[in-house]
Amino acid sequence: MFFRLFIITFVFMIEDVITSAQNPRVKQMVLLGQKSSERRRQGLFVAEGRLEILHCLEAGLHVTQLYVCPELAAPEGDTEWEQIRRLCPADVTTTKVSPKVYEKMAYRGTTEGVMATVEARYKKLEELQLSEHPLLVVLERVEKPGNLGAVLRSADAAGADAVVVCDPLTDLYNPNLIRSSIGAIFTVPCVACSSEECINFMKQRGIQILTAQLQDSHLYYETPMLEGTAIVMGTEATGLTPVWRKAADAHIRIPMLGRLDSLNVSVSAAILLFEAVRQRQK
Amino acid sequence: MFFRLFIITFVFMIEDVITSAQNPRVKQMVLLGQKSSERRRQGLFVAEGRLEILHCLEAGLHVTQLYVCPELAAPEGDTEWEQIRRLCPADVTTTKVSPKVYEKMAYRGTTEGVMATVEARYKKLEELQLSEHPLLVVLERVEKPGNLGAVLRSADAAGADAVVVCDPLTDLYNPNLIRSSIGAIFTVPCVACSSEECINFMKQRGIQILTAQLQDSHLYYETPMLEGTAIVMGTEATGLTPVWRKAADAHIRIPMLGRLDSLNVSVSAAILLFEAVRQRQK
Repeated sequence: MFFRLFIITFVFMIEDVITSAQNPRVKQMVLLGQKSSERRRQGLFVAEGRLEILHCLEAGLHVTQLYVCPELAAPEGDTEWEQIRRLCPADVTTTKVSPKVYEKMAYRGTTEGVMATVEARYKKLEELQLSEHPLLVVLERVEKPGNLGAVLRSADAAGADAVVVCDPLTDLYNPNLIRSSIGAIFTVPCVACSSEECINFMKQRGIQILTAQLQDSHLYYETPMLEGTAIVMGTEATGLTPVWRKAADAHIRIPMLGRLDSLNVSVSAAILLFEAVRQRQK
Repeated sequence: MFFRLFIITFVFMIEDVITSAQNPRVKQMVLLGQKSSERRRQGLFVAEGRLEILHCLEAGLHVTQLYVCPELAAPEGDTEWEQIRRLCPADVTTTKVSPKVYEKMAYRGTTEGVMATVEARYKKLEELQLSEHPLLVVLERVEKPGNLGAVLRSADAAGADAVVVCDPLTDLYNPNLIRSSIGAIFTVPCVACSSEECINFMKQRGIQILTAQLQDSHLYYETPMLEGTAIVMGTEATGLTPVWRKAADAHIRIPMLGRLDSLNVSVSAAILLFEAVRQRQK
């Protein structure tokens, strides 16, 4: 333990301030932000800004390294920073970086001069802890990280048990996803798996599968959602694949009363989830 | 008339292809896309891509000029382009531009090589044609064009009569607004005015004012929305100002059942609007 502390102090001391954008650790941070393959390989992702880091820590995720740019950060002693330091294990080092280096590392512009690397946690379906009458959102082949993030935010608000992404085309720790979820990626259990695995899981647990689609569909507000319910949605462009249409217990639709023919997926998810909330709270 | 046709042909001929990004018309297009003051001054805005231009024409807006980059556009004779030409008056000229010039003029990257300038139409409250039991969305001090665009999309889907923006901090023809509305800015009547004007308008017409706020509020799905209803929302950051809280017939809230404390304004709007749809279609 003494030896370990010694090493950390040593590393901390020689790297007191990173001022070169060519520093290998800077390059690693940039890669982690940009490449899902790199996140997978290292089992890490990047959290940017105080609130995002706090959400990670509160969700029990393991922060491995903090980076601070004092010129961009709030003054020492602000509450959020104290919370972050209190929730971080003592052996997590804080490395200072220059504004130029921070700008290079940061995915977004204005993130309060604080970043962290965090251990990714890829949950499995079997690990989900579901309530008695669970409410889930299933997204098939979701492509845009921003859409998945926004769905997670809607799912958090509606108190959904989990979001399952089937055959996803995006990584769960994509920086755009984390940002657009406003932290919901850390508060709502989120699992990636195949459609087949997901269908088996729902069938085994007696959770009804409601697919959002136009064909042969009922109005969503005429569809009972009191029992365990999974609301399944496809992409805006191509909808759901036949495997889901076949597995469905019912097809539901949101009436389109205007001139356009679609809603954003996070908006649709919210409308459907809050109908379940309404029915269940009556 | 002959003289006018002659002039147009002449202009068209000498400007057959604009290849210089320094051309004054290119600079004017860039300004129109970037500056709301310029849009106001000229009474014009920019529509990018076939679908956006079609939406403008179908809404009866007056296209004043078309720009096409043949290298980026779909081949001659495609249906959308034929529709655009059929809906445009004959005296609207088409100016060809080089790919480099198009890239300079376009606000977004991939917009099918077609742009247009369109006459802006700033509607007034009194011009709104409302149904017997109108359903309206009112946004106070909305700042992000993307949020307003997304609200318009939700309003279109729910068949709302209009969206009213009070004391807005964005221009109705901002390119991000047009894009995020997916055309709803042209399908849903949208009016900008002061909060005072809007409150008077609602009171005079007996339209109930439901403000989305937490304090002293009822659950939205326990609030009747069968009569004429205006759903009023403030910004995510600061909420509504006291003038609206005082004018309200009832305060309504969406229950937040997760760990986060807010929803995106377009998601909230959709949840509230579709509750009105549900109640009215029963």
